[in-house]
Amino acid sequence: MTRAAVLGAGSWGTAFAKVLGDAGTDVTIWARRERVAAHIREYGVNNEYLPSTRLPERVTATSDPAEALKGADFVILSVPSQSLRGNLADWAPHIGPDATLVSLMKGIELGTTKRMSQVIVETAGVPADRVAVVSGPNLAPEIAAEQPAATVVACTDLDRATAVQNAITTRYFRPYTNTDVIGCELGGAVKNVIALAYGIATAMRLGDNIKAALITRGLAETTRLGVALGADPMTFAGLAGMGDLVGTCTSPLSRNRTFGEHLGRGETLEQAQASTRQTAEGVKSCLAIRDLARAHGVEMPITEQVERVCHEGVDPRVALTDLMSRDTKSE
Amino acid sequence: MTRAAVLGAGSWGTAFAKVLGDAGTDVTIWARRERVAAHIREYGVNNEYLPSTRLPERVTATSDPAEALKGADFVILSVPSQSLRGNLADWAPHIGPDATLVSLMKGIELGTTKRMSQVIVETAGVPADRVAVVSGPNLAPEIAAEQPAATVVACTDLDRATAVQNAITTRYFRPYTNTDVIGCELGGAVKNVIALAYGIATAMRLGDNIKAALITRGLAETTRLGVALGADPMTFAGLAGMGDLVGTCTSPLSRNRTFGEHLGRGETLEQAQASTRQTAEGVKSCLAIRDLARAHGVEMPITEQVERVCHEGVDPRVALTDLMSRDTKSE
Repeated sequence: MTRAAVLGAGSWGTAFAKVLGDAGTDVTIWARRERVAAHIREYGVNNEYLPSTRLPERVTATSDPAEALKGADFVILSVPSQSLRGNLADWAPHIGPDATLVSLMKGIELGTTKRMSQVIVETAGVPADRVAVVSGPNLAPEIAAEQPAATVVACTDLDRATAVQNAITTRYFRPYTNTDVIGCELGGAVKNVIALAYGIATAMRLGDNIKAALITRGLAETTRLGVALGADPMTFAGLAGMGDLVGTCTSPLSRNRTFGEHLGRGETLEQAQASTRQTAEGVKSCLAIRDLARAHGVEMPITEQVERVCHEGVDPRVALTDLMSRDTKSE
Repeated sequence: MTRAAVLGAGSWGTAFAKVLGDAGTDVTIWARRERVAAHIREYGVNNEYLPSTRLPERVTATSDPAEALKGADFVILSVPSQSLRGNLADWAPHIGPDATLVSLMKGIELGTTKRMSQVIVETAGVPADRVAVVSGPNLAPEIAAEQPAATVVACTDLDRATAVQNAITTRYFRPYTNTDVIGCELGGAVKNVIALAYGIATAMRLGDNIKAALITRGLAETTRLGVALGADPMTFAGLAGMGDLVGTCTSPLSRNRTFGEHLGRGETLEQAQASTRQTAEGVKSCLAIRDLARAHGVEMPITEQVERVCHEGVDPRVALTDLMSRDTKSE
């Protein structure tokens, strides 16, 4: 019997646990708070993040990471990006010697500018070919409601990617395999930053023409960074690039887009955090992505402006005007 | 003084005439109906297609094509795709020996499966390097309202592309040059077909995840066909590919998406035509694009299903289910 540990009981971690369970895998979710774990055990529901979704019988929960990790073939990591390193250091001793580590996280580590899979390799002391990444247009509430979706499972070891694919294939969830871990991770991380810009543009009532151009330019700067870091440019034309970006920008379910709308209405970062009761992933990642881009000499004008709005107090209207008046003559 | 003739007084032709006028070019619109031309001359308004847009002083109109074409440096073609050949045969003798012919049209000719620029070269008897194409995320009502937008001007002769670029650059409209005429035309034509599918999916209340996947797969099949026909794959990652597709699919202003929504609610082709009082471009083009794809051995599963819904009476729910159950293992 295949077993999986899902570390992190946010909405995506919980929806992913449901997918694994529906695909026939036994799952233990680790929740930081025992109260959340107990509610899942007793009622089969994560009442904090997905209160209207009934989890399959195969899914249980604990607040003890060692218990969750015991005998897990798949270790699914779904904690806030900036807390991964600290958490994983504690968890590593409990991870089995041949377990596949699967990242659902979409951030870049501040300070080190490392991708999540790099943090995993360093902190868990595992070879890179044991680390897989799942990324695509996967808004968690839709997947929890069993609305059809597709995704990409990337691992440099294609056999492991295929094993993950088999463990998460259901009637409503269709994973495709890929070996480009770098491209899939960057697509997932940068899209949150572009979605903040899209949200700002939406709140400023910009038209669909310029918002389509913003998405296009956003994918272009993502691809430039990806290529500089060794990704396959074709990845960005796929579900983990364009697909995820389009889904995140156009859906009102996206937290990053919604957060951007608050900023675009003139709220400060603190006000937007208070309004949405959370910090969108892109707010932190934009700093790390900007640093990564500068270190590699890659121009990322949208990311630069989002960073200025989020962290330098620049008026979103000024930032967007700066962006659109850039003098560029060929695409 | 630069002069332009805009042949066709639909919403995009009219908005484009405004752009030209705002950029400092004298423009004569040719309208098929004298009533429309007279209203533009007298009131500066196309009361049929853009009733709330005041055209610049430099824009006038006529129902006499010879008068419109007299002395025109730029001949802008903006008639329904399937009527181009017949119209242009009549107009050709009035086109100046060094005029640049600019296509705004987004179709493929039925029967011949030719792109609009090919029909222009054949029918007007001009060399291909005198034909330019303008394509991008350019919903006409937004441009008429001077909301910012970007576009691509493609011509195999870069000097001509630059001349067109200069003639249409305004504060709110930013054109980029490109030499890939094939890619720009295909991006513009196929996006209408994908937008029909997107509209059907929207009416069927599919989620944002699968709709993002549909856009991604739609661009992938467009790119496959483009590459088979000699286009540069990078064009499809730009404004005339992804940009136009995203804009058309996500905007409620898009006629093709709206038409698809009618089909998705179970209306027949005739009922949808009656509801919208027009036929969306993609309805005809899907036949020609399917034929083109088959002739080049290119798989275009979304286009195939749209054709079945439009012309073979297949239930959109059946077509979409067929599409999503396709067995594909890697992207």
